[in-house]
Amino acid sequence: MTRTALFAAGDGDFAEYEAPLHAAFARAGLDVAVVTEAAPDTVDYIIYAPANPLQDFTPFTRCRAVLSLWAGVERIVGNPTLTQPLARMVDPSLTQGMVEYVTGHVLRYHLGLDRPATAWDPVVPPLAQDRRVGFLGLGELGRACAQALAGLGFQVAGWSRSARDVAGIAYHHGAEGLRDVLRSSDILVTLLPDTPATANILNADTLAQLPRGARIVNPGRGTLIEDAALLAALDSGQIAAATLDVFRTEPLPADHPYWVHPRVTVTPHIAAATRPDTASEVIAQNIARVEAGLPLLHEVSRGAGY
Amino acid sequence: MTRTALFAAGDGDFAEYEAPLHAAFARAGLDVAVVTEAAPDTVDYIIYAPANPLQDFTPFTRCRAVLSLWAGVERIVGNPTLTQPLARMVDPSLTQGMVEYVTGHVLRYHLGLDRPATAWDPVVPPLAQDRRVGFLGLGELGRACAQALAGLGFQVAGWSRSARDVAGIAYHHGAEGLRDVLRSSDILVTLLPDTPATANILNADTLAQLPRGARIVNPGRGTLIEDAALLAALDSGQIAAATLDVFRTEPLPADHPYWVHPRVTVTPHIAAATRPDTASEVIAQNIARVEAGLPLLHEVSRGAGY
Repeated sequence: MTRTALFAAGDGDFAEYEAPLHAAFARAGLDVAVVTEAAPDTVDYIIYAPANPLQDFTPFTRCRAVLSLWAGVERIVGNPTLTQPLARMVDPSLTQGMVEYVTGHVLRYHLGLDRPATAWDPVVPPLAQDRRVGFLGLGELGRACAQALAGLGFQVAGWSRSARDVAGIAYHHGAEGLRDVLRSSDILVTLLPDTPATANILNADTLAQLPRGARIVNPGRGTLIEDAALLAALDSGQIAAATLDVFRTEPLPADHPYWVHPRVTVTPHIAAATRPDTASEVIAQNIARVEAGLPLLHEVSRGAGY
Repeated sequence: MTRTALFAAGDGDFAEYEAPLHAAFARAGLDVAVVTEAAPDTVDYIIYAPANPLQDFTPFTRCRAVLSLWAGVERIVGNPTLTQPLARMVDPSLTQGMVEYVTGHVLRYHLGLDRPATAWDPVVPPLAQDRRVGFLGLGELGRACAQALAGLGFQVAGWSRSARDVAGIAYHHGAEGLRDVLRSSDILVTLLPDTPATANILNADTLAQLPRGARIVNPGRGTLIEDAALLAALDSGQIAAATLDVFRTEPLPADHPYWVHPRVTVTPHIAAATRPDTASEVIAQNIARVEAGLPLLHEVSRGAGY
């Protein structure tokens, strides 16, 4: 029997996703019609991104799952009309892209690539084994990045809200653990989800706990950083530099001080793009699981918010 | 019985090496006096770097081995007075530093880190799996770098003069193999030794075999590249950018066009520094081997030149 999947994402996304979704459904042996408009009570699945105006999930009485195209679900998880199971996107390409971004920017700071030589003045950078990299957040993405950097020889420590066990990574949790990771991070990478508990986790107090001259890479969420506190810490020299991929308002407004700050590098939310080919495979796999009576992969916990 | 090691390297090197050498000899249980001057016929070992004026090895009749502090031995291997066994430096810290340098600069080109965003214009870079990195040279350093990049997901191929077997790396050799690697390298890393066979291996002909817009990273030897041909290829757009750590004349003369070329990044021979602590361990290990009647580690083949 044909299932109906409503594709409800950003303008232009359907053009990118239509062919990969059809191909993935065919490979999975699924008979799914993907539509951009449908009577709500005929919809079996919703493929969703928050760029879509759909906000009221009440009429979708037959819908068996909402499948997010985005890794971050903070703009949908608190929606009281959403009673259907919700899955985050965990796209292996997205993880790979994040690993490349984080490894590249950490090595950029480690090797001093922003300051090309203009005269012959050899200064050998310290080895990775003498550089401490801290991670706030050890979920799918944090773990993958932390392990890649540990593999290159960096001293890596991580912090998460709840206990995690990550091979090769010194691990901390709770308020005490946060202090321990901050004070031993020459380079800090923030990959926490956006929840009430993580909002402004980098503020004047926590930025002051980092070693003087620390560097920050934030490809996680814009809400993790109190922007005014970061700008003040950059101006005082407490923070030497920051690379930011995510912002409270996106696109980052043209008059935002981050654009012109000499020690801030802005990247336009590109650290971890969902790629239609691999994301479509994940969507097909999850629909096949629901059809087979299995639980969703990467189902969002409404209590935790991710 | 006390052995005498003559330390014959650059000005200032002895201050850096004296304590680490003594510590390494003590740990190895060796009784070695390290001196900077001695009657030649009292010298058992020479710890050598080409920055030293010592060029005539004839009077060192008792010397059992010359232990290079440098990985590259092109400035000593052809010396006809050198009849003693010669060992290259293979310092694990040097290899680690090279891996960090090559990984950092390849990711810099891969992710486009030289062009920070000045407006919100998201362009997601291709994944490493869609980027081809070629290595000329698969010795100690080339292998370590190639494997690190393969571990990050890059498509890695390598070429060396003679057959090699490197896990995870598509491997080529000979003239035909060189063409194959060149034409499939979006980013080319040159880590060949300096020998008559490798001089000017990157010239107008071979640069033209690279895909248009290829990038080059040369932390190997300055003689591998015909400088005028590289400058012409950069100006024509055949080569999009080059990062060069080694040069025919070092320090690179202040009026050299590389310093000011907008698509050339000069680093002052820092990619792989020998670090006194770890290099001293290698020297002590090799002296202990000679004393025990074992062959030198990393002994240089006079025929091959490395």
